[in-house]
Amino acid sequence: MVRKVKDGGKDESQDDVEAKPLLDVPTRHTAGFVDRGTEKPQWKIKSVVTVALTLLTSSQAILIVWSKRAGKYEYSVTTANFLVEALKCALSLAALWRIWGTEGVTDNNKLFASLDEITVCTVPAALYLVKNLLQYYIFAYVDAPSYQILKNFNIVSTGVLYRIILKRKLSEVQWAAFILLCAGCTTAQLNSSSDRVLQTPLQGWMMAIVMALLSGFAGVYTEAIMKKRPSRNINVQNFWLYVFGMIFNVIAIFVQDFDAVMNKGFFFGYSLITTLMILNHALSGIAVSFVMKYADNIVKVYSTSVAMLLTAIVSVFLFSFHLSLAFFLGSTVVSVAVYLHSVGKPRR
Amino acid sequence: MVRKVKDGGKDESQDDVEAKPLLDVPTRHTAGFVDRGTEKPQWKIKSVVTVALTLLTSSQAILIVWSKRAGKYEYSVTTANFLVEALKCALSLAALWRIWGTEGVTDNNKLFASLDEITVCTVPAALYLVKNLLQYYIFAYVDAPSYQILKNFNIVSTGVLYRIILKRKLSEVQWAAFILLCAGCTTAQLNSSSDRVLQTPLQGWMMAIVMALLSGFAGVYTEAIMKKRPSRNINVQNFWLYVFGMIFNVIAIFVQDFDAVMNKGFFFGYSLITTLMILNHALSGIAVSFVMKYADNIVKVYSTSVAMLLTAIVSVFLFSFHLSLAFFLGSTVVSVAVYLHSVGKPRR
Repeated sequence: MVRKVKDGGKDESQDDVEAKPLLDVPTRHTAGFVDRGTEKPQWKIKSVVTVALTLLTSSQAILIVWSKRAGKYEYSVTTANFLVEALKCALSLAALWRIWGTEGVTDNNKLFASLDEITVCTVPAALYLVKNLLQYYIFAYVDAPSYQILKNFNIVSTGVLYRIILKRKLSEVQWAAFILLCAGCTTAQLNSSSDRVLQTPLQGWMMAIVMALLSGFAGVYTEAIMKKRPSRNINVQNFWLYVFGMIFNVIAIFVQDFDAVMNKGFFFGYSLITTLMILNHALSGIAVSFVMKYADNIVKVYSTSVAMLLTAIVSVFLFSFHLSLAFFLGSTVVSVAVYLHSVGKPRR
Repeated sequence: MVRKVKDGGKDESQDDVEAKPLLDVPTRHTAGFVDRGTEKPQWKIKSVVTVALTLLTSSQAILIVWSKRAGKYEYSVTTANFLVEALKCALSLAALWRIWGTEGVTDNNKLFASLDEITVCTVPAALYLVKNLLQYYIFAYVDAPSYQILKNFNIVSTGVLYRIILKRKLSEVQWAAFILLCAGCTTAQLNSSSDRVLQTPLQGWMMAIVMALLSGFAGVYTEAIMKKRPSRNINVQNFWLYVFGMIFNVIAIFVQDFDAVMNKGFFFGYSLITTLMILNHALSGIAVSFVMKYADNIVKVYSTSVAMLLTAIVSVFLFSFHLSLAFFLGSTVVSVAVYLHSVGKPRR
C-alpha cells in the first residue's frame, strides 16, 4: 500500500480518524494541511470554491424564479432531490476514477473506508431528512412569507453551533458582523407582508428554531467530517455522504410522494428546466462540500447570503424585478458585514 | 498678552484663539484640557451630557407625538424657535451670573469676547436659517415620508465633514459602524410608503443632500467653536451662539410668519404643551452644546439615533404604537453600530 510521508514523520492521515472522537476536529491553524507551507494554494482554492458556491447558489434561485414563471412545480420534489444526490454520487465516482488513473489507489483515495468513517456520514443526511419532514408541518403555524423571514435563524444557529461544536473562535467584530449578516439578509427580504411574522404563534417560532438548529447542526457536522481527516480525498468523503443522501431521500419519497410516484411515474412533470435545476443543485451541493473542506460554515453562510443579493440584482434585468428601499438597506448592511468579517480576524 | 506655553507652564488659553485659524482645532488627545490629567472627570462629564441629550431628545419626540395627538400645530413655529433661543440665552446668562459670584470674573468667563470670537458664532445660526428656509421648498419635490428617510443623510454628512473639516480620525471599524448607523436608522423608520423615496426626482435628492451638508457643517462648525478654546467657559460660548440664534430667528419670523404674527399675535395658539416643548428644546439645545464641547459630533449623532429608538419603544406604552419587524431589524443594526463604534477605537 502506498503511503505518503510528509515532514519525515509517519503518516498521520489514518490515526487522525481513529485516535480522536469525530467532533474533536483539528482547528484551522493547527490542522496539518494548512500549516505545512501550503497557505497560498489553500487561500486560492478557498477563493475559487467560495466564488463557485456564490455563483451556483444565485443561479439556483434564478432557475427557481424562472420555473415558477413557467408554471407551477409539476414534478415531485422528493424524486428530484433523490436525483440530485444520485448525480452528486456519480460525479464523485467519476472524479475518483480519474484520480485512480493518474495517482493510483492510495490510502487517502480508496473508496472503502472504516465503519467509523462511514457511520458518521449518515448523520447529516438523517438531520436533513428530519428537517425536510418538519418543513411540511411548520406551515400549519407559519405562513409562507413569514417562513422566508424565519429561515434567517439558520445564520444565527450556524454561527452558534460552529462556535460550540467546532470550537472555532470568532472575534468580537466577527460576531457583530454575523448578527449584521442575519439582520441585513432579513431586511433585504422585507415586503408588505413581512410584519405578519410578528403574529406567528409560539409553536411556529419553536419549530423554526428547531429547524434552524437541525440545518445548522447538519452543516457543522459535515464540516467536522470533511476536516477530520484533511488528507483524505474529498471525493471519497463526498461519495459516502451522498450515498446516504440517496438512501434517506428514498425514505422521503416513500413517506411523502409514494402515491404520486406510483400513479404518475417517477419522472412525471420533468422538463428542461427541471433537469437544469437538478444539475445546478448537484453542482452547488458539491461546491458546498468543497467550501466545508477548504473553508468553513461561516464562509458558506456569507457566500449564500451574498448570492441572495446577486440573485435579486440579476432578476432586475432578467425579470424586471423592482428593488425596494429595504433591499438597498439590507444589502448595505450585508456588505458591511462581509467587510467587517474580513477585517475583524482574531489576532493570533 | 498672556500666553501659556505647554510644558513650560504659561497660559495657552488665549493664543489658541488668536494664533491659529478657527478650523485648526486641537485634536482630542493633544488638546490641552484632556491631557492635563483630567481624563477621568472628562469621561464622566462626557457620559452625563450624552445621556442627558439622549433622554431630552427622546422626550422631545414624545412631546411632538403628544402635541400632534392633541391637534394640529396652531402656533407659529418660527416664534417658538425664537423663544427657544431666547430661553437658552437667558439660561446661559443665569449660569454665568452664578459663576461670576463664586469664581469672580476671569478671562475665561467674562462675557465680552474678541470680535473674532463673536463673528464665528454667526456661522452656525446662518447655516441653520438657510437650511430651515430650504425646508419649505424641498416639499415641492419630496413628499413627507420620503423626507423622513432622506433626513438620514445628515448622519453621513456629519461623519464626512467631521473627518474633512475637524480632521478627526475614525478607525475602519468606526466608519463601518457609521454606515450601519445610517442604514439602521433608515431601516427602523421603514413603512409601507417608504419606497416612494425611490421615485424622488433629482432636484429632491440634490436639495436633501445640500440640506444635510448645511446641517452637518453647522454641527461641525459649532464643535470647532466650542473646542477652539477649551478653557473658555461654555456658557460664554453658548451665550454668543444663542444671541445670533435669536437674531436669525427674528429674520425667519419676518420672512415666513410676518402676517400671521401681525394679525393673530406672537403667542397665538400657545398651550401648556407648546410651553413644555419650548422648554425641552432649550434644554436639549444646551445639551447639544455640552456634547460638542466635551464629546463630539459623532457622539451627538449616536445619541440622537438611540433617542429615536427609545422614543418608539416608549410610544408603545404611551400611545400603544405598533413596532414593525423593520423597527426591530433597524434597532439591532443601530445597537451593533454603537457597539462597534466603542470597540473600534483607533489605536493610538
